[in-house]
Amino acid sequence: MKLARYTYNNRTSVGLVADGRIYDIPAALPHVPANIREIFAAGRGMLDEIARELPGARKGLALDEVRLEAPINDPQKYMAIGMNYHDHAEEARAAGIPIPTTQLWFNKQVSCITGPYHPVVKPKVSDRLDYEAEMGVVIGKRCRYVSEADARSVVAGYFVSNDMTARDWQAASPTFTLGKSFDTHGPIGPWIVTDDEIEDPHDLEMRLSVNGEPRQKSSTGGMIYNIWQQISHLSQVMTLEPGDLIATGTCANVGIALDKFLQPGDVVRVEIDKLGHIENTIVDE
Amino acid sequence: MKLARYTYNNRTSVGLVADGRIYDIPAALPHVPANIREIFAAGRGMLDEIARELPGARKGLALDEVRLEAPINDPQKYMAIGMNYHDHAEEARAAGIPIPTTQLWFNKQVSCITGPYHPVVKPKVSDRLDYEAEMGVVIGKRCRYVSEADARSVVAGYFVSNDMTARDWQAASPTFTLGKSFDTHGPIGPWIVTDDEIEDPHDLEMRLSVNGEPRQKSSTGGMIYNIWQQISHLSQVMTLEPGDLIATGTCANVGIALDKFLQPGDVVRVEIDKLGHIENTIVDE
Repeated sequence: MKLARYTYNNRTSVGLVADGRIYDIPAALPHVPANIREIFAAGRGMLDEIARELPGARKGLALDEVRLEAPINDPQKYMAIGMNYHDHAEEARAAGIPIPTTQLWFNKQVSCITGPYHPVVKPKVSDRLDYEAEMGVVIGKRCRYVSEADARSVVAGYFVSNDMTARDWQAASPTFTLGKSFDTHGPIGPWIVTDDEIEDPHDLEMRLSVNGEPRQKSSTGGMIYNIWQQISHLSQVMTLEPGDLIATGTCANVGIALDKFLQPGDVVRVEIDKLGHIENTIVDE
Repeated sequence: MKLARYTYNNRTSVGLVADGRIYDIPAALPHVPANIREIFAAGRGMLDEIARELPGARKGLALDEVRLEAPINDPQKYMAIGMNYHDHAEEARAAGIPIPTTQLWFNKQVSCITGPYHPVVKPKVSDRLDYEAEMGVVIGKRCRYVSEADARSVVAGYFVSNDMTARDWQAASPTFTLGKSFDTHGPIGPWIVTDDEIEDPHDLEMRLSVNGEPRQKSSTGGMIYNIWQQISHLSQVMTLEPGDLIATGTCANVGIALDKFLQPGDVVRVEIDKLGHIENTIVDE
């Protein structure tokens, strides 16, 4: 199933997406929270109930009548792994960043999250705004010390992410987080596709274009550390919570490798097979 | 005023601390949320009301009857600055970490926050557990692009922090965050002292001891980038929210510089003038 957060008539709610329409969940099931993180926290039974009761319960709205929002905008954590595709690690090394010898984790601050079709701001304090197509993973169960073999059981679903980056701020500090966390630099969506709909999350094609010009393209199978290794590694350190977001890394041909940075008016589109696409226009601050 | 979060008879609430007693705030003022982050978000009026109505309204509990909890355990962000005291930057450089040329920010994951007298776990996957005494700052107002001159106006108050660190995990990755974020590695407290009680936050003595043996000692005036510069810099990137936590850096004589790491049974105490102390016992996992 596809779970989305959306605004219609100045009211924001959550809905089930099916056949190009969105079916409001709390309208049909008033006990269900209007928050996808909390729906995952409530467990499988609530998801089954949503699948069973909707879309029959209401007629729904056409997707183009609503504004889709970031499906989860208040996670406890938004973790991201750096240099996790072989081809991107090579181009980063060529630019002077050594290939890490273990999983390289940084944070996108939760405050940077924005919607799948919302504007992305080019900060007045940066001249090197860049994109990174990434598949995102949502945690579905509170967990710690998850083995690679069990990791899939704690995944709620997947989404499309653009790990927008101010390269000048990223380069200024080895810790990355400021360059990765400008307000609006975390567009995600268009919805969460639950794990049961995706046979193999490491066999999806991911594509990014700027103004229609193809830039990035890879199978999600190009990851150095796969999703299960990522979850297992993170959970050795910290308790993961339902709704936590993980960006699983980008592939080659980021803007800095091509010496092409984003400017106001540019339209960046990221698309992943079976997950949908997000498309954001760069705007001046 | 001092605002604390505490548990008594299996119920967790927030209270005002005065004269060695704690006065429950929602019991006297039922419309006030039992959440210090939300109290700050509500603004100065609510703080004034608490100061006016308590402690007169109730007789309070002796502090030693209650268990103090982390005063804020659900911030949107917990940011921390690295190598921000001259003496610590020198000892870190001696250990091979270059002195940064700009503010070096990393995250402690919110999930690592624990109480002022709670146990701290030595992870089974780390042999190099270390302490860092730090003064913490709580943001009181939603803000972006704050000048250094205005930065104090967005501060709600201050607290004592121990930025517990797994040095082996920190060293494995330039981004720091995993080594800084093991569950229980963020003890804070014992309460939030509001800004109006502190004349000069850059003129407080900070001390850390292990099993009573003095280790760290500095004035908070030893910072390279002061609190106002920190807030101004962060707010160029991201919107800061009420309740966001900032750890402002540690001074010299961390364990790694002395080649002394923490072991189960060790008691680590951090004390800052006018803010109080926290004291945590290291336990095996």
